[in-house]
Formats: sequence, C-alpha cells, structure tokens
Amino acid sequence: MGEKSATRLAYHLIRTDSSFNKALGEGISTIKDKIHPCPVCGCYTEADICEYCSDERRDRTALCIVEEPQDVLSIASSGAFNGVFHVLGGAINPLDGIGPEALSFPSLMKRINEGSFKEVIIATNPTEEGDTTALYIRHLLKDRDDIVLTRLASGLPIGGDLGYADKLTLARSMRGRIRL
Amino acid sequence: MGEKSATRLAYHLIRTDSSFNKALGEGISTIKDKIHPCPVCGCYTEADICEYCSDERRDRTALCIVEEPQDVLSIASSGAFNGVFHVLGGAINPLDGIGPEALSFPSLMKRINEGSFKEVIIATNPTEEGDTTALYIRHLLKDRDDIVLTRLASGLPIGGDLGYADKLTLARSMRGRIRL
Repeated sequence: MGEKSATRLAYHLIRTDSSFNKALGEGISTIKDKIHPCPVCGCYTEADICEYCSDERRDRTALCIVEEPQDVLSIASSGAFNGVFHVLGGAINPLDGIGPEALSFPSLMKRINEGSFKEVIIATNPTEEGDTTALYIRHLLKDRDDIVLTRLASGLPIGGDLGYADKLTLARSMRGRIRL
Repeated sequence: MGEKSATRLAYHLIRTDSSFNKALGEGISTIKDKIHPCPVCGCYTEADICEYCSDERRDRTALCIVEEPQDVLSIASSGAFNGVFHVLGGAINPLDGIGPEALSFPSLMKRINEGSFKEVIIATNPTEEGDTTALYIRHLLKDRDDIVLTRLASGLPIGGDLGYADKLTLARSMRGRIRL
C-alpha cells in the first residue's frame, strides 16, 4: 500500500466509531489464529474442513487445481464449476527457486489415487510458470487414461474488443478456436 | 482527444520542422482520396486489392470474418492466421438499429459460394453484438456441412492472473476448457 492510501486509512480510523476500530483491531490481531488452510484442499477456512470440501452437493468426480487459496473463491463464485479444489500453494518457478517439491503435489497425488475423479481441471495462471506447472501435472498423470485432463481456456476476455487484445492472447485465441 | 492532449500536439507542431507539418497536413487532407476499402474483403488499402487478398502465399481455404477493418491488422500481426479476411463493417446490434442488412453479408455469401473455403473462422468481438452476429453467420452456413465453422476462443488473457479475471470470463474459460 502506498503512503497516500495509508494516510487516508489512518485519517478514516481517527474519524470513525471506536467500537469499529476495536473490532477491526481484534479481527486483524487474531486472523492467523482463526483462519487456517483446509487440511484437504489447502484453501483458507475457519472450520475444520473448508466449505467446499465439506459440501456434500459438490461433485467429487471433478477436481480443479489452482495456484493460490484466493483462486478457489474466484472460480467458485464464477458459478461454472461445482467440483472440489486443490491448492498447490504457488507455481513451479525455477528462476525463483520454486521447484515441484515446494508445492503440494504429494497430497494432490494422494487425493487423486484415493479419490474417484473422472476429470482434473488445471486452473493455474496463463503465465509461463502456470504453463510449466500444467505440464508437470500432465506428466504426473500420464498413466491415468481413466482421468480426463483439461485446462482453462485462454483467449479474448468477455465483453472486450479485438483491438485491445495483445498479440499473444489473440494468437492463443486463434490457435484455440472452438468448433461451432 | 482531450483538451490537454490537443494543446500538447499543437505546441509540438509549432516547434517542429515546417516540412514535417506540410507533409502531415497533406497526408491528412488526402487520406480519404488514397485509402479505400478493398473491394474483395473490405479492409483499408491504398492499392486496388489489399495486401492480404493479393498475397498468393496466403491460404485461400481459410476465411476469417471480422467486424472492423482494423481487426484485420490485429489478427494478421498476431501471426496465428495465414488465410484471408472478410470485414463485415460492424456487428448486428438491434438496439442501435443495425440489422444484418447493414453489414456485408451478401458479398460474404458470394465469396463463400464461389470460393473453396474449408474453414470459416468467426472473429467477431466477444460481446453480445459479436455473439449475435456469430449466431447469424452460423445460421447462414447451416447447410454447408463441407465447411468447418469455428470461433476465436474466449478465456483468460495470456500472462494474466486468475484473481484479476472477471466472473464472466472465468466462467467462459471454465466452460470452454481444453482437453490436454
């Protein structure tokens, strides 16, 4: 956060009701005691098991692999996925010294081997690190012909204009064109 | 253009070499005499036939349909398409009173009927108007089983982060997920 934003917040806290400040202060000081990673999928939760892993209405044959805990919320709130999640804790990034051993691949493989997944959706970011991670997952699952492996589509953002799309995205949307 | 940008340009023109100003002024005053739509595809050109339609190395079995002349340049410079183009001159937009009759569908159908296209790629914008136009083209070509009809992929922009994607784009990238 920049100096100006911080100043604005500080002035707001001076003007606001002190009971609000007390609640906010307590919330901030105890956030790490209350919120912890779900032992199953790795997304943040206040409960023993997160709301997605414990929701019986979610499809346990579809697993969506994401990089960060906040990606779970993004995808769940898009309304287009009703399966369960697995948080890797990042992406493979050799330049920053992040290899596969730094991510939650062991628990991922355990879940896949013990579960009844029919589809594994790789929802890593459309970056070089995300692509590398997707390739690694593909390698891990190369002998599982019974599981359909998919990846989120890359292309033009909805509501956008071709003229504003960068060349790489345009090229990807052309190569990944969909048969109507 | 805003007042500030216009002022900046005006001051630049005062400072700059007058031969440059003369050339720029002449260029602007004659642009509409020199540049005209290509009679084949509708993109802008100074020649009788545009550089894409007259380039023998381009694939004449693939036709890419776009809304505006500038979309031709965007797609051509992405390097992912080596076929020829057709500019519709906009998208169907009933709210603005733009129906199919306002667009270049007659010349499109003439080209498709007389050409040897194996694939027609709909590259209208990923907006409601672009979607409506794509649907209309699909309807026009419904009896041409010999032509593969495709559309540019929608989804996450390359290099982006899942957390910055809007819900609609995220939902589309999930629904349009690609089998690896």
